[in-house]
Amino acid sequence: MGWQSRFQGLVTHKIFEAFIISIIIASALMIGVKTYTLPPWGYRLLLIFDWAITLIFLAEIGMRFLAANPHRNFFRSAWNIFDALIVTISLIPIDNTDMALVARLVRVFRVLRMVSIIPELRMLLNSLVLALPRLGYVAALMFIIFYIYAAVGSLLFAEINSVLWGDLAVAMLTLFRIMTFEDWTDVMYETMEVYPFSWIFYITFIFLTAFAFLNMVIGIVVNVLEEEHQRELAADPEHISLNQLHEEILALKALIQEQKNTRQ
Amino acid sequence: MGWQSRFQGLVTHKIFEAFIISIIIASALMIGVKTYTLPPWGYRLLLIFDWAITLIFLAEIGMRFLAANPHRNFFRSAWNIFDALIVTISLIPIDNTDMALVARLVRVFRVLRMVSIIPELRMLLNSLVLALPRLGYVAALMFIIFYIYAAVGSLLFAEINSVLWGDLAVAMLTLFRIMTFEDWTDVMYETMEVYPFSWIFYITFIFLTAFAFLNMVIGIVVNVLEEEHQRELAADPEHISLNQLHEEILALKALIQEQKNTRQ
Amino acid sequence: MGWQSRFQGLVTHKIFEAFIISIIIASALMIGVKTYTLPPWGYRLLLIFDWAITLIFLAEIGMRFLAANPHRNFFRSAWNIFDALIVTISLIPIDNTDMALVARLVRVFRVLRMVSIIPELRMLLNSLVLALPRLGYVAALMFIIFYIYAAVGSLLFAEINSVLWGDLAVAMLTLFRIMTFEDWTDVMYETMEVYPFSWIFYITFIFLTAFAFLNMVIGIVVNVLEEEHQRELAADPEHISLNQLHEEILALKALIQEQKNTRQ
Amino acid sequence: MGWQSRFQGLVTHKIFEAFIISIIIASALMIGVKTYTLPPWGYRLLLIFDWAITLIFLAEIGMRFLAANPHRNFFRSAWNIFDALIVTISLIPIDNTDMALVARLVRVFRVLRMVSIIPELRMLLNSLVLALPRLGYVAALMFIIFYIYAAVGSLLFAEINSVLWGDLAVAMLTLFRIMTFEDWTDVMYETMEVYPFSWIFYITFIFLTAFAFLNMVIGIVVNVLEEEHQRELAADPEHISLNQLHEEILALKALIQEQKNTRQ
Repeated sequence: MGWQSRFQGLVTHKIFEAFIISIIIASALMIGVKTYTLPPWGYRLLLIFDWAITLIFLAEIGMRFLAANPHRNFFRSAWNIFDALIVTISLIPIDNTDMALVARLVRVFRVLRMVSIIPELRMLLNSLVLALPRLGYVAALMFIIFYIYAAVGSLLFAEINSVLWGDLAVAMLTLFRIMTFEDWTDVMYETMEVYPFSWIFYITFIFLTAFAFLNMVIGIVVNVLEEEHQRELAADPEHISLNQLHEEILALKALIQEQKNTRQ
Repeated sequence: MGWQSRFQGLVTHKIFEAFIISIIIASALMIGVKTYTLPPWGYRLLLIFDWAITLIFLAEIGMRFLAANPHRNFFRSAWNIFDALIVTISLIPIDNTDMALVARLVRVFRVLRMVSIIPELRMLLNSLVLALPRLGYVAALMFIIFYIYAAVGSLLFAEINSVLWGDLAVAMLTLFRIMTFEDWTDVMYETMEVYPFSWIFYITFIFLTAFAFLNMVIGIVVNVLEEEHQRELAADPEHISLNQLHEEILALKALIQEQKNTRQ
Repeated sequence: MGWQSRFQGLVTHKIFEAFIISIIIASALMIGVKTYTLPPWGYRLLLIFDWAITLIFLAEIGMRFLAANPHRNFFRSAWNIFDALIVTISLIPIDNTDMALVARLVRVFRVLRMVSIIPELRMLLNSLVLALPRLGYVAALMFIIFYIYAAVGSLLFAEINSVLWGDLAVAMLTLFRIMTFEDWTDVMYETMEVYPFSWIFYITFIFLTAFAFLNMVIGIVVNVLEEEHQRELAADPEHISLNQLHEEILALKALIQEQKNTRQ
Repeated sequence: MGWQSRFQGLVTHKIFEAFIISIIIASALMIGVKTYTLPPWGYRLLLIFDWAITLIFLAEIGMRFLAANPHRNFFRSAWNIFDALIVTISLIPIDNTDMALVARLVRVFRVLRMVSIIPELRMLLNSLVLALPRLGYVAALMFIIFYIYAAVGSLLFAEINSVLWGDLAVAMLTLFRIMTFEDWTDVMYETMEVYPFSWIFYITFIFLTAFAFLNMVIGIVVNVLEEEHQRELAADPEHISLNQLHEEILALKALIQEQKNTRQ
């Protein structure tokens, strides 16, 4: 047995996986602990732990790479590339003053390795991402609605409140805020003082987006129910359709008819 | 081949459509850019682009009209009339001081031409509009609820806060705000100082509208699921129902019975 | 033909119904108009219109009563009693200073006659009311959750803010406000200054009510879908079940078996 | 008939149950009344009632324990343990200054005995608790999203507003607040003054959580519909599947074929 298959046996072993998951959890806890005020020795301890975790992750990714056969297969999986990137960037020391923020942020994203390690979470995220395209045209329509209302809003209201309606980007943020009903009446009352009929702008926007959103949700529900139905059918390979039953009965009829003809 | 069929070939050509879509996108981007502060030459450039886009749209609509056979068929489609209107009103120069606002607004609505050009978006909007009637009676009931609560509200609370409850229109706007839960307790606490039991007014209103809204959503979901089911049945023209199977079996029975009788 | 059947013919006539509906709409518009400031002759005009509408309604209810056979059947329908009550109380003159508010409120509720006249709206309201019992136990559970949290809240927080948590009724109103997410963090931050862990109180309450609410909605959706399914089955009286088909096939088998036995 | 079966007969008797339920309701009402200001004799009366209720509950639990056969079976049900605990802790006198708060809180939780007594409510709560595991992985994914955003938030924004982003726990509370759309723009505008692009943080968080939440709800709906479907099938033990019908028809065919062969 070559060293490659030994690595392969190791990285797929239950205990190895449990160990890596516990290291990820420890890494996550460290990130949490760091947000609290600690005594000086606490920071030193965290620094040591941080180096230990980085080295363990480096060793793990190295082993996974060596276990892959051929090695370039390792980079076929997007999750592996993500893992390798996260671990490589983690090599930036956390007390590097130039890139301290990057070093800290990448340590936060190490928590995402939890998703790349646990298959159920990976599948869940995949299914979330796969659900996005079916939102396609409704999302496009919603964007057009947002774009038009933002353009009209910044055209009419920019001089009333430039913080909320100053340019297109800011107006779209304001419209998103209105869609979440967050103090939308304050925004409206302000513009109603200049344009008393500007409530039409807000009410139509709320109705349009609420309606499009509802439509999207219902579309997803119907889609999911249908897929579930298809999966059920596919899961039962011996499933007989009504049409198949019909053909069987017709065959039976032909048989009896033939029997009758031969006798006469 | 006459010039009419040549125009027809042109306006339905993939490249022509892609060109028009990119012009619409350019037009939309221009509207966005205009909301930011620009150097003077930027405004002059935008003015030139605006004229170019207007002329291209004019030429496009003209070709579509000439391609239609007979010409009056062109105005049979509501989307064509919409396109023609938008493009015609765009002829108002944007620096016309009298109608500057109209000229600018119509340029915003040119973005909607995206919907009239892309068939999927057109179908989606059509289906949204077609879904409205099935909201019919629930919407009527909701309007009656709004009307009664607005009348009672402006009767009781007009003297407490005339900005919120002064007349029927304003009271309906306030009720819509309460339905979106937007600072509704501020409105309630104000009237509770005069009428300590006015919370009944707000709580019953919230329950009634939430219940009616829920009912509406469930009604739509059930409707959509049913339509989906009907479409599935219709999509399978050879679909055999249980009743048809039953008739086949009865025919079989009659055949055997007859066979038996002839033998005796 | 007696006068009773003549009345019956009259009150069920399309034109009569359309006339009454237009009078109800006129009555509703009057209520709306009254919330605006009017010139003196406007108020006098409204007073005359109000008397006219009251008299027309009185005549209509009288005719309906006389058309009923026997007369006491008229009071069998809850909607008729409602109509009669509304119209009778409307006889209080609107300028009666003692009961001005009652007189005005009852005129608002005349708008509800719209529901009692249009059968589709009446059915919709009936179905809304009939849907209430199936919320039964979830509503009871939700009330118990509210009661316990209100009792705990007024026990712990009454001295922090007696306006929000002073007694049980006020605490329940505050909890309802929290359920609608209306400035709930303001309420929480206030109590967190005294009890730093009081966020547990709010978060658990939000989770419990959101979960119970979600459960209620899903329960209704499933119920409605099932009823729809039952109605579909009932609407097709010749619907054949798989079990019936099975019996037919068994009968066929017995027939062939018998045929075989007689021959041997 | 021994005393045990007599107790058994008693504790399962309709009148006994109705009596206990009315005592629980009385106990709940007392808790409510206590939150209002009362005259001195009112407090004395409540104290007497409280002792009476405590004694009745003690007697009831005692009888239930004695009725159980064997006695240790009584503690097999989690609800019985809950009842016994609540009643035992209720023995702490309410005017005990050291444990007054505990004594009062436990009297509030006596209202929960309503759930343990009424079987329908008990079943409903059980089904709510049983529904939790199917939220499992989505809840885990949501927690990871919360954890990462809280870590990034407290890393970037802790110095802008330490009350909202000071440490991980406080940042998670702030994120929960943002998820409920409660004044989330105030939080955002504050950080946008330092990091103008921090709106990306908020918008992506809202989209991610809303999307995961939607997915969870749809997952539950599909699950419940499927369970309902399974229950329906199980409720009809004589239900015939299409495959069973197919087998019957094949058997029929074989019979006719055999008949034909024997004749030739």
